[in-house]
Amino acid sequence: MKKSGYLLIVFLIFSITACNHKKGIVVFQTDFGVKDGAVSAMKGVAMGVDPDLKLYDLTHEIPAYNIWEAAYRLQQTAPFWPAGTVFVSVVDPGVGTSRKSVVLKTKSGHYFVTPDNGTLTLISQSLGIESVREINEELNRRKNSQASYTFHGRDVYAYTGARLAAGVLPFEQVGRELPAAVVTIPFQKPVYQGDSIMGNIPILDIQYGNIWTNINDSIFKVLHVEPKEKVEVNINRNGVPVLNQDIEFVHTFGEVPEGKTLAYMNSLMNFSLAINMGNMADSFHINSGPEWNIVVRKKKPN
Amino acid sequence: MKKSGYLLIVFLIFSITACNHKKGIVVFQTDFGVKDGAVSAMKGVAMGVDPDLKLYDLTHEIPAYNIWEAAYRLQQTAPFWPAGTVFVSVVDPGVGTSRKSVVLKTKSGHYFVTPDNGTLTLISQSLGIESVREINEELNRRKNSQASYTFHGRDVYAYTGARLAAGVLPFEQVGRELPAAVVTIPFQKPVYQGDSIMGNIPILDIQYGNIWTNINDSIFKVLHVEPKEKVEVNINRNGVPVLNQDIEFVHTFGEVPEGKTLAYMNSLMNFSLAINMGNMADSFHINSGPEWNIVVRKKKPN
Amino acid sequence: MKKSGYLLIVFLIFSITACNHKKGIVVFQTDFGVKDGAVSAMKGVAMGVDPDLKLYDLTHEIPAYNIWEAAYRLQQTAPFWPAGTVFVSVVDPGVGTSRKSVVLKTKSGHYFVTPDNGTLTLISQSLGIESVREINEELNRRKNSQASYTFHGRDVYAYTGARLAAGVLPFEQVGRELPAAVVTIPFQKPVYQGDSIMGNIPILDIQYGNIWTNINDSIFKVLHVEPKEKVEVNINRNGVPVLNQDIEFVHTFGEVPEGKTLAYMNSLMNFSLAINMGNMADSFHINSGPEWNIVVRKKKPN
Repeated sequence: MKKSGYLLIVFLIFSITACNHKKGIVVFQTDFGVKDGAVSAMKGVAMGVDPDLKLYDLTHEIPAYNIWEAAYRLQQTAPFWPAGTVFVSVVDPGVGTSRKSVVLKTKSGHYFVTPDNGTLTLISQSLGIESVREINEELNRRKNSQASYTFHGRDVYAYTGARLAAGVLPFEQVGRELPAAVVTIPFQKPVYQGDSIMGNIPILDIQYGNIWTNINDSIFKVLHVEPKEKVEVNINRNGVPVLNQDIEFVHTFGEVPEGKTLAYMNSLMNFSLAINMGNMADSFHINSGPEWNIVVRKKKPN
Repeated sequence: MKKSGYLLIVFLIFSITACNHKKGIVVFQTDFGVKDGAVSAMKGVAMGVDPDLKLYDLTHEIPAYNIWEAAYRLQQTAPFWPAGTVFVSVVDPGVGTSRKSVVLKTKSGHYFVTPDNGTLTLISQSLGIESVREINEELNRRKNSQASYTFHGRDVYAYTGARLAAGVLPFEQVGRELPAAVVTIPFQKPVYQGDSIMGNIPILDIQYGNIWTNINDSIFKVLHVEPKEKVEVNINRNGVPVLNQDIEFVHTFGEVPEGKTLAYMNSLMNFSLAINMGNMADSFHINSGPEWNIVVRKKKPN
Repeated sequence: MKKSGYLLIVFLIFSITACNHKKGIVVFQTDFGVKDGAVSAMKGVAMGVDPDLKLYDLTHEIPAYNIWEAAYRLQQTAPFWPAGTVFVSVVDPGVGTSRKSVVLKTKSGHYFVTPDNGTLTLISQSLGIESVREINEELNRRKNSQASYTFHGRDVYAYTGARLAAGVLPFEQVGRELPAAVVTIPFQKPVYQGDSIMGNIPILDIQYGNIWTNINDSIFKVLHVEPKEKVEVNINRNGVPVLNQDIEFVHTFGEVPEGKTLAYMNSLMNFSLAINMGNMADSFHINSGPEWNIVVRKKKPN
């Protein structure tokens, strides 16, 4: 009786562990597209590490070599995944040069496995840096991959991310700890000056052609713009004017007629512009990136 | 002995439950595309609800705002997923207007979480309405999302769908029960009249340019067309003739020469048209939607 | 006591089995695209077989009917997935004709469920044929699908692949064993002749426009080319010259200036060509397939 009781308890612990401890999530982002087998090979390597991992995608449609957009997509998405999620981001124009391979652990408990080439510019600011470690590529590398020069995404990043998520590789054993900083791309942060807010257009809501800015709602509030009131918007590229328009600020697209421009807070609570049932970026030849800036002020009633 | 026996049984039940009860499947459909992080954010929210959920995609390439196509894809796909599967469909041109957010439970035991804007037109007819409930958005909403005006897909639909699939939210607690009906888009149902069948072209088999109709095989049978016999086909758009052709009815594409038009029953057992190794929609400028209709009759031997 | 001890052991075995035996992985490849519901229907059928299966994608963007590219993607990707993985590949221009439906088991322990139409040309050579069985389509077919003539991908291949991966269908019960051979597409294998290596361009690295060849590093070694040395490259299509250029052989893209052509070993350890930060295939109008060949020789210092 006593013996079987002990057995039972041991077994209880064993079973719960066996059934429940493997919940590691890995989320992949690349500029590889999905027309070839590169993304699938990365996932195959991860399944070889632990078939109970849960593998998901952020996107593989980052424009080739566009580090800025990779940075933006991480910031846009990562906060909605549970703490402990491991992101593997491979947009790597400098593969084979001296850029470091790192794992960033944020204060929120998310992990980011990536070349440290600017990809971490935004997420390191929004989620906060807990610790950065350089991946020791001698140790953290798929078996028999030493002769492979170029596919770090599969042989180092996917492999390391999977082992981290599976609990096989503790964060502390990734490699040496670096100073708590990452490589960053300069851009216009949102600032309130006089009666205006200056900011940046980091990205388009590409499927619909909406214009997203980095002016969040706590900054926008200082203009005291009420729904149905108008704002004056100036957009410029490297200082050259592209758009100057008075636009109604509304809660939802349906509040203005089809084809009309509107201003709204997007799902990330950032000030944004759109045409109801239309494509604003195409209509006004507006794009996004570090060189695209915006100035917003409250329109005075005439 | 007796005590450990009880323990064993309790534990048995516990273990089976722990290991096996979490099989919830969520299938996502949107018009968001996969170039940005929107779909991934939805999945992140679902993983936050329960990391043992199984998350899959129907498609995210529904043309922007095309509710009709969203309706068609659900009908085409849902019956092949097991009962209990939760579909989250977000094609929502009226976001922020008065359309209701609902969960449809069909007689087949599938769930559909969506704005009630016509998306349920076809699936409600083919699988049958068991019950419709309006989502109580005050209760069924991701934590800290009250300030977000526009991303219902992530904050309400993905969150509610995930909780439903995980067994955290019983269907009865989604919100108040509505009358057993959904918003529907009008279209030509298949009818037999004189010697002809009239029907609709709901969709193209877009990858290959094949023409799919809503004339299913039980209706088509009334024409008594045998394989290798011909049918006369008229296609019109809003009543304007687009195609008039006599076409051979065959079992498989390989039965006609390359480049030749053929009629066949598609994988959904609906009457369809194609060019063997060619693109019929492009060749004859045929498209699909509520305004595209077809008339089929058996060709009399001369 | 004794009885409960037995019970415990029985239960121990049962639990471990219940928790751990279901790790079947199915990887899908098609030319269906992901704009419609066809791929999702295949996965729905697989989930109906066993909701604990892990379903992944190789790609669904194989150009329509391009069996050669399907063959290449399997070879490129399958070796990185664990033994036991079941690949379901459906690129099937001859659906309904006399091509056989087969399951190939390779010496590496991977399974390939596909029409035997050339799709297995490369993987059968690289991983080796252990056994080939013809699928008995009478027995191995989704319930109630007898009336469906055309969607083998869903009703036969996805269903059979899922049952194989779930352990429900032992390989031996797939159907009768065939001779250990598959249908193959002819192409130029890499050969060393005089001072040159002749080979084929099986595929482009399409996202970046890089040129991949089938000349692997063990053959390339016979030319004794050191990093920073040059090779003379001739590319022809059906024997017609397309490119003749002397190109530097390097370890990584970063070793040559932006816009410059380079030669390197790709992630599969095959000799490849690229333009650093550019698109070589577009720049020189080079494509891939059985008809595209390459001759490489070491450039003698002047």
